[in-house]
Amino acid sequence: MTTRVGVIGTGNIGTFHVNTLATRVSGAEVTAVFDVDTQRAKSLADDVGARSCDSAEAVIARDDVDALLLASPGALHPQQVLACLEADKPVLCEKPLGVTTEECLFVLEAEVALGRQLIQLGFMRRYDPGYLQVKAALDGGHIGDPLMLHCVHRNPTVPPSFNADMAITDSVVHEIDTSRWLLGEEITAITVLGGRTSRHASAQDPQLVLFETESGVIVDLESFVNCQYGYDVRCELVGSDGVVNLDNPTVSAVTAQGNRSTTVPADWQTRFGPAYVVELQAWIDGVGGGRYTGASAWDGYATTAVATAGLRARATGDRVEITLVDKPSLYDGACA
Amino acid sequence: MTTRVGVIGTGNIGTFHVNTLATRVSGAEVTAVFDVDTQRAKSLADDVGARSCDSAEAVIARDDVDALLLASPGALHPQQVLACLEADKPVLCEKPLGVTTEECLFVLEAEVALGRQLIQLGFMRRYDPGYLQVKAALDGGHIGDPLMLHCVHRNPTVPPSFNADMAITDSVVHEIDTSRWLLGEEITAITVLGGRTSRHASAQDPQLVLFETESGVIVDLESFVNCQYGYDVRCELVGSDGVVNLDNPTVSAVTAQGNRSTTVPADWQTRFGPAYVVELQAWIDGVGGGRYTGASAWDGYATTAVATAGLRARATGDRVEITLVDKPSLYDGACA
Amino acid sequence: MTTRVGVIGTGNIGTFHVNTLATRVSGAEVTAVFDVDTQRAKSLADDVGARSCDSAEAVIARDDVDALLLASPGALHPQQVLACLEADKPVLCEKPLGVTTEECLFVLEAEVALGRQLIQLGFMRRYDPGYLQVKAALDGGHIGDPLMLHCVHRNPTVPPSFNADMAITDSVVHEIDTSRWLLGEEITAITVLGGRTSRHASAQDPQLVLFETESGVIVDLESFVNCQYGYDVRCELVGSDGVVNLDNPTVSAVTAQGNRSTTVPADWQTRFGPAYVVELQAWIDGVGGGRYTGASAWDGYATTAVATAGLRARATGDRVEITLVDKPSLYDGACA
Amino acid sequence: MTTRVGVIGTGNIGTFHVNTLATRVSGAEVTAVFDVDTQRAKSLADDVGARSCDSAEAVIARDDVDALLLASPGALHPQQVLACLEADKPVLCEKPLGVTTEECLFVLEAEVALGRQLIQLGFMRRYDPGYLQVKAALDGGHIGDPLMLHCVHRNPTVPPSFNADMAITDSVVHEIDTSRWLLGEEITAITVLGGRTSRHASAQDPQLVLFETESGVIVDLESFVNCQYGYDVRCELVGSDGVVNLDNPTVSAVTAQGNRSTTVPADWQTRFGPAYVVELQAWIDGVGGGRYTGASAWDGYATTAVATAGLRARATGDRVEITLVDKPSLYDGACA
Repeated sequence: MTTRVGVIGTGNIGTFHVNTLATRVSGAEVTAVFDVDTQRAKSLADDVGARSCDSAEAVIARDDVDALLLASPGALHPQQVLACLEADKPVLCEKPLGVTTEECLFVLEAEVALGRQLIQLGFMRRYDPGYLQVKAALDGGHIGDPLMLHCVHRNPTVPPSFNADMAITDSVVHEIDTSRWLLGEEITAITVLGGRTSRHASAQDPQLVLFETESGVIVDLESFVNCQYGYDVRCELVGSDGVVNLDNPTVSAVTAQGNRSTTVPADWQTRFGPAYVVELQAWIDGVGGGRYTGASAWDGYATTAVATAGLRARATGDRVEITLVDKPSLYDGACA
Repeated sequence: MTTRVGVIGTGNIGTFHVNTLATRVSGAEVTAVFDVDTQRAKSLADDVGARSCDSAEAVIARDDVDALLLASPGALHPQQVLACLEADKPVLCEKPLGVTTEECLFVLEAEVALGRQLIQLGFMRRYDPGYLQVKAALDGGHIGDPLMLHCVHRNPTVPPSFNADMAITDSVVHEIDTSRWLLGEEITAITVLGGRTSRHASAQDPQLVLFETESGVIVDLESFVNCQYGYDVRCELVGSDGVVNLDNPTVSAVTAQGNRSTTVPADWQTRFGPAYVVELQAWIDGVGGGRYTGASAWDGYATTAVATAGLRARATGDRVEITLVDKPSLYDGACA
Repeated sequence: MTTRVGVIGTGNIGTFHVNTLATRVSGAEVTAVFDVDTQRAKSLADDVGARSCDSAEAVIARDDVDALLLASPGALHPQQVLACLEADKPVLCEKPLGVTTEECLFVLEAEVALGRQLIQLGFMRRYDPGYLQVKAALDGGHIGDPLMLHCVHRNPTVPPSFNADMAITDSVVHEIDTSRWLLGEEITAITVLGGRTSRHASAQDPQLVLFETESGVIVDLESFVNCQYGYDVRCELVGSDGVVNLDNPTVSAVTAQGNRSTTVPADWQTRFGPAYVVELQAWIDGVGGGRYTGASAWDGYATTAVATAGLRARATGDRVEITLVDKPSLYDGACA
Repeated sequence: MTTRVGVIGTGNIGTFHVNTLATRVSGAEVTAVFDVDTQRAKSLADDVGARSCDSAEAVIARDDVDALLLASPGALHPQQVLACLEADKPVLCEKPLGVTTEECLFVLEAEVALGRQLIQLGFMRRYDPGYLQVKAALDGGHIGDPLMLHCVHRNPTVPPSFNADMAITDSVVHEIDTSRWLLGEEITAITVLGGRTSRHASAQDPQLVLFETESGVIVDLESFVNCQYGYDVRCELVGSDGVVNLDNPTVSAVTAQGNRSTTVPADWQTRFGPAYVVELQAWIDGVGGGRYTGASAWDGYATTAVATAGLRARATGDRVEITLVDKPSLYDGACA
């Protein structure tokens, strides 16, 4: 009954996943891990009673590995996901599915050829209670037709190496997915505006990103990766009859020295840690039962298509349109 | 010691002003009113013990009128303000100072030629406690350098005659002023985006308006004049070290049937009524003492320059730049 | 049309009232003041163009005084109010109407003998938008029948001379009035509990005060006059079908260094200053038109009866019952 | 590595626990269940791959049961806990440890004789992020010394059979525990006040309960089990330098038709479901490692002592004092 998971990549997020699977998810066991930093992989494997392997391929091939979790560098995802498909094993792939639209499409076609979904993308926000409530408010008819979506996505700091392009591919990509998922339609154009840069930033930051969707909804997103004060992800979905706001979770407030204060999440672990646990539990539950509740390879392809258009938009200052291939019927009924 | 005020225009806002001056402002008295609807003017004048006059000019000329309040149609403002200047009487002019940049400039030059400020523009938000707290947070160094400003400006409904251009000149103009005032710098470019329109609207609505300022701050504003649910004006000013949010004033909450609810202001009177009272009291106090705390003719000129650029931006879909004349030294030290 | 007010007592609150009447209230003028500190009275009188008199009686007697505002020590109120009744002049008397129930009753009977209301008590909370919304929620049927009322009343600090009895007579008295007014019925018993005292306090502080009303509603009140952090007055009215909360007014929030913060009022001026302005305007409007909207002499009598019972309850540790005289018909239809 | 759990009692909460252990807790497996409703027990056992036993004793005795979870009627707890101690198996006992203080004491002494802790009490609030933040604010010195604690505990409805005594033993008992745990000291007296009863209630409801602690902190608690509108548990801990409030968790807000609304939890599952999962995971983790993080048998004894004193207080209307036996050293360093 236990699903035995192999984890490829044991950096920041990979380590988080290994520990979550080993200690917080029912019905899961981590049996094998791989990382180019073999020391780190070995140490983590020991912690959770798993084996450290010599390669990603070795992990995928093992008999005691029923399913794979990819937390390796994005550039390696297509080839590793294809190996999972070949081995006929379910794979939870952290974003992105691939760095280029072409390689995403290649993976997508492979899955379509297989005829059933093995790939889930790691867009954990779809499991966050707040986002689910926003979606429920829209889908439940409480705010009428969606017209605009205002988003902010702020990180306290990033390393100097984290440039303005990476803000698009690594950070904005989350709103690309949530916008598509919330609105239930594709993004057709993207614009990226610069403006005044924070003195704490080593690259253009913040940026204002605009999406347009098939039905004409405008999404604006402030991407600010050096906001200093905390990890702050919020949105306001504007409908024809009302609005719904995603707030930071708060459960207590301290009043002292003239102020009533609530805490802003310090980092993504604080904010979305619980959503990752739910995501992994749902994935493990689904792997057993053949049900998929998360983002699909199609979502991986579409988000990369928008993100790469975003890079062009940033470079040129232009509004860049996105055209997707026809959606294979395999993904009908999928979330977006 | 009492300032005797003549009011020109007794429509919605003019009537509100007459009643405020007569019953809520210390040291003020309404002595004369004029409106093309003489019936309405007469009735209102009777209510407050004032005289109804035959023309705006007659009001301005009266000996028992120390100061003027213009709530007439915007197209008439330049000529009426000029008459006030000629009569050497202080005038509180509801926005706009003029419909075209050229006529605003003409008025501005007349005041400059006079050599002292008699004109105040009716941008009441500058007297709203919430906006003042936002400004204090920025000016007090609590959020670092300003980088972006996100605004929403929603009205429940407008008459079918209120088109998308009027949303710019009558509604967005408030954020043109507050953005300049909060940031202490001029707006240099404007873009207006359409998108999906509400089924409750008879013209493009909502619209997403973008301002750029001298220092590169990007302001985004959702202008939505048919949002149905209430009068909702909020903003979030994003700094390099923190953010400050303008919220709707709330003083109580009702919890029943599963929800904790606070009321959204029903209309502009509910939301900004108190600010109008403070504005008029400050104007009356200032008229006596020769002090001006509000928006100046320069602010009137600059806001019209941005608003008219906004009309072009809307018509063409382009980003339109704004170039102002050099600021006369008369307005040094003024708010924006 | 202008009501000429004489102000007796120019301490903290008296000075506040003089300035409010002179500069923020329409239709009012301060013509005479008296204080035992004649220097202070003279200086304040000069500020607002009034005359400083030699005695309270002199102020009351003046021809150019139409109405009186009493901000003198509470012990002097009965005699001064009686003088106002004799002079047939309206009087706004700061709480208390009298220090003992007997003297309040004496004043009450004098007004009843006169046959019409001249006395208003200065319970300004009845003009606070928050309290009015709480009352509207109850009276509008939004929370069902009232069952309990939880209150906190916190001051940042008091002078060492402010003892635990004064907390009852000077601070708790506000909740005595608001409880009666909100619930529309009298308080029949009071209990005062001590408990652990703050290290910042020189007397028992905080105290937990319990009221019981005619219909059995229990009111609990934390009275804490050295809470350090601000002036914090809130309540939660619990009904059979819902609750309504009185919150501190907030219009903005600053987020920085990991926290989202709203300001707690620093002092009573910040919190209830606007309510005092509304109270005085309503009183001036009423004096002209013979309408009374505020607390009556009956309310003054009833609050003193409860407060003095509270002193006994504190001294003995017992639950003390309150029995009022029959309510004269003059006060039928009054708020409580 | 997997802890095999036997669950006794499969009513509402027992079923919740069985499902949680089987599907949401890492390292746990439900192997045996018992309920007097053998049908229900059998069906639930089948759902999770467990065996249904003929008696509680049979479950406790099984070789494939490493630890016990008691969700049986409270009256049976002492005997069943003692059986667990005899079998030398850890037991998570839902409150109460026993219905009378005497039987709690008997169990306590048995554990003390054993010399190590096997018993954990199911006070799940100790695992709720909100309560933990309240405790952290106090323990971190952010509010100074604790002086008062205001609590509300509201349920939407209870069956007619749920009388006012049960409100003390089944509902108020949670605040008995949280008050002791938050403040780190014992309750020494309890008073229960009635007052006006809701028309929706078939017994006295709400009730105002007062605790006094060793250091003199006063705790007031509104217990209201028929509040209609939702499940609402909040508190405000008042310190000498600040206060901390436990709020309902909110992550989104809908604004429509004039109101901004957040949802109040519908029931205990919504509000404390996540805390139960954390509690069970911590218990399972602790059972493996011999660590205990939750409430102990001492806490079970002390809460029953206060609750039974509460029943006397309710019956007599008196303030009833509580005297506990000396705390055995086995429980030193335990939470309360």
